[in-house]
Amino acid sequence: SKSYTITLLPGDGIGPEVISVAKNALQLVASLEGIKFKFNEMPMGGAALDLTGVPLPEETLLSAKQSDAVLLGAIGGYKWDNNEKHLKPETGLLQLREGLKVFANLRPATVLPQLVDASTLKKEVAEGVDLMVVRELTGGIYFGKPRGFSTNENGDELGFNTEVYAAHEIDRIARVAFETARKRRGKLCSVDKANVLEASMLWRKRVTSLASEYPDVELSHMYVDNAAMQLVRNPKQFDTIVTNNIFGDILSDEASMITGSIGMLPSASLGESGPGLFEPIHGSAPDIAGQDKANPLATVLSAAMLLKYGLGEEKAALRIEAAVLDTLNRGFRTGDIHSAGLNLVGCKEMGEQVLKSI
Amino acid sequence: SKSYTITLLPGDGIGPEVISVAKNALQLVASLEGIKFKFNEMPMGGAALDLTGVPLPEETLLSAKQSDAVLLGAIGGYKWDNNEKHLKPETGLLQLREGLKVFANLRPATVLPQLVDASTLKKEVAEGVDLMVVRELTGGIYFGKPRGFSTNENGDELGFNTEVYAAHEIDRIARVAFETARKRRGKLCSVDKANVLEASMLWRKRVTSLASEYPDVELSHMYVDNAAMQLVRNPKQFDTIVTNNIFGDILSDEASMITGSIGMLPSASLGESGPGLFEPIHGSAPDIAGQDKANPLATVLSAAMLLKYGLGEEKAALRIEAAVLDTLNRGFRTGDIHSAGLNLVGCKEMGEQVLKSI
Ligand SMILES: CC(C)[C@H](C(=O)O)[C@@H](O)C(=O)O
Ligand SMILES: CC(C)[C@H](C(=O)O)[C@@H](O)C(=O)O
Repeated sequence: SKSYTITLLPGDGIGPEVISVAKNALQLVASLEGIKFKFNEMPMGGAALDLTGVPLPEETLLSAKQSDAVLLGAIGGYKWDNNEKHLKPETGLLQLREGLKVFANLRPATVLPQLVDASTLKKEVAEGVDLMVVRELTGGIYFGKPRGFSTNENGDELGFNTEVYAAHEIDRIARVAFETARKRRGKLCSVDKANVLEASMLWRKRVTSLASEYPDVELSHMYVDNAAMQLVRNPKQFDTIVTNNIFGDILSDEASMITGSIGMLPSASLGESGPGLFEPIHGSAPDIAGQDKANPLATVLSAAMLLKYGLGEEKAALRIEAAVLDTLNRGFRTGDIHSAGLNLVGCKEMGEQVLKSI
Repeated sequence: SKSYTITLLPGDGIGPEVISVAKNALQLVASLEGIKFKFNEMPMGGAALDLTGVPLPEETLLSAKQSDAVLLGAIGGYKWDNNEKHLKPETGLLQLREGLKVFANLRPATVLPQLVDASTLKKEVAEGVDLMVVRELTGGIYFGKPRGFSTNENGDELGFNTEVYAAHEIDRIARVAFETARKRRGKLCSVDKANVLEASMLWRKRVTSLASEYPDVELSHMYVDNAAMQLVRNPKQFDTIVTNNIFGDILSDEASMITGSIGMLPSASLGESGPGLFEPIHGSAPDIAGQDKANPLATVLSAAMLLKYGLGEEKAALRIEAAVLDTLNRGFRTGDIHSAGLNLVGCKEMGEQVLKSI
């Protein structure tokens, strides 16, 4: 029977609660599918800062690199918000992405029929939304150099960053996006600001030049400001979106909020080879941490993405996805997606119900 | 009687149609308020490219600089989309902003009770939204150097831009924002990505340090990805938002779409001194250009902002704003904001009705 090593990074806030639920789900499908998991739980983010003084200890990165896939809960919290840059939980996350070379961040935003009312968009606008943001994750302004602070001729302080893309970085994320679109509804929208930025002009040129290799995919281009509008106006027009690191950060969060249920949304970050990183798109929610109120389904669905994209265990992934839908159909809801007449449960109970559905 | 010179830049697409309506409105309030206007109509954008080979001819910039205020229609169109950078209509607009040193871009997003149904957001989420985005307009990644293309050690093509802010650039836009918030509901939200970008760290530091000078304004900070979400989740939480050039581009467009009526939204771009630049936030809409279908109200309201912020003619501005509301109350609607039972009119007829209301 197949055996995999999974690094678990519970992190901060609600992270440990949701990871514990997802771990149980993984364990159960494993036994049903004849898979074996070895779990390595490692510190990361604020938890690691408190324990070791750095947000991503070497042992954590090493364990992540040596495993078959990495499942992360959430990081960050008020406590570390004013830390210097190299001591921020967020810096640990960026180091992890860089260390694992996971350049392709897949962020689905789907409005489930069961949860269409959770959206702040009108029902007819929200229902049926099913899009995927493919965000470049290890380049652009997040990592570009030079960066830092300096002083100009007038003694004025400067803060600066570099938005930079190399052709090969654009090509590899574009290929992931074309292939993602091909497996979906065959429509790819590349988002940039090519009317102003040189980095975007190169982006558009490279994406355009790859299109001939994917004749079955319909490629379009959109400026980022327009994309931010179109997501509100008519999100159903989108199938797959591909964009750079910072635009992807903004647009994927906007898209996720359009679904109204960010407690439900998973993500996958993949490299050329090596382990992928899987995490819910929501944050560490320090305000409800430790209160058994968190919605674990985004992490459970991230575990499903781990099975599908990280390990190729498609059947086990489908089992988890089906179980989540079944749990919703049986009326169980955490507070963030609860509405009148449905069964309000906590994080643990939701986890139990998912196990039952599996 | 006071006399002002106004440079009119009709530009491309629907630009000339909407500028013509706004000019008539300005002329009528002028006669009622005992003001005199001299209008200089100059080419700009694609129209200027066709006529002179550049998107912002020297004479146009000179006229703009020497006038008391500048009213712009819209620029751009398919025809020039694939032009080289220095021959893009957009480049002319950036040169105009730079030339006039209009660093503060004010973009209101208001949901009028008459138009609440135009929003794709649920009524209870959209109604009462009244926010102002103060966007830095002459700095950041739009203008930062170095920028361009190069080749790295591996022969790989690079495209790069620089996001850079100097302390004084942040201070002056922050002051405009604090003062704007003070005249509104006293709440200012500064949006950045200070958990990742040094330019944002300096931004947050400077904005924070100015807060003590505005004790009557309640300052908060938000990351840009969260802001993109919060605008969808609960836009009413915002009063005044201040942010950099690129984040302002994205968030102000998102905010405007949340109102559902971007054909209604004006903007003002102001400098330390010298003429301001006023323009509707919508684009040149080439698909409906020349068909008498455009909504001229965003440009008419931009003319009201011109009177108020550009010339200090508060009373004349109020006349125009009141006339727009009265026209809506009398049931006139262009196609973009039309709904059953109301009076569908074209651009010209809408203009006539506004004059009647004035
Ligand atoms: C925490 C932060 C550094 C991170 C990012 O900006 O990438 C987060 O917003 C995300 O999208 O995963
Ligand atoms: C046309 C373009 C250069 C411009 C910008 O990005 O500033 C536009 O989107 C705007 O917001 O006025």
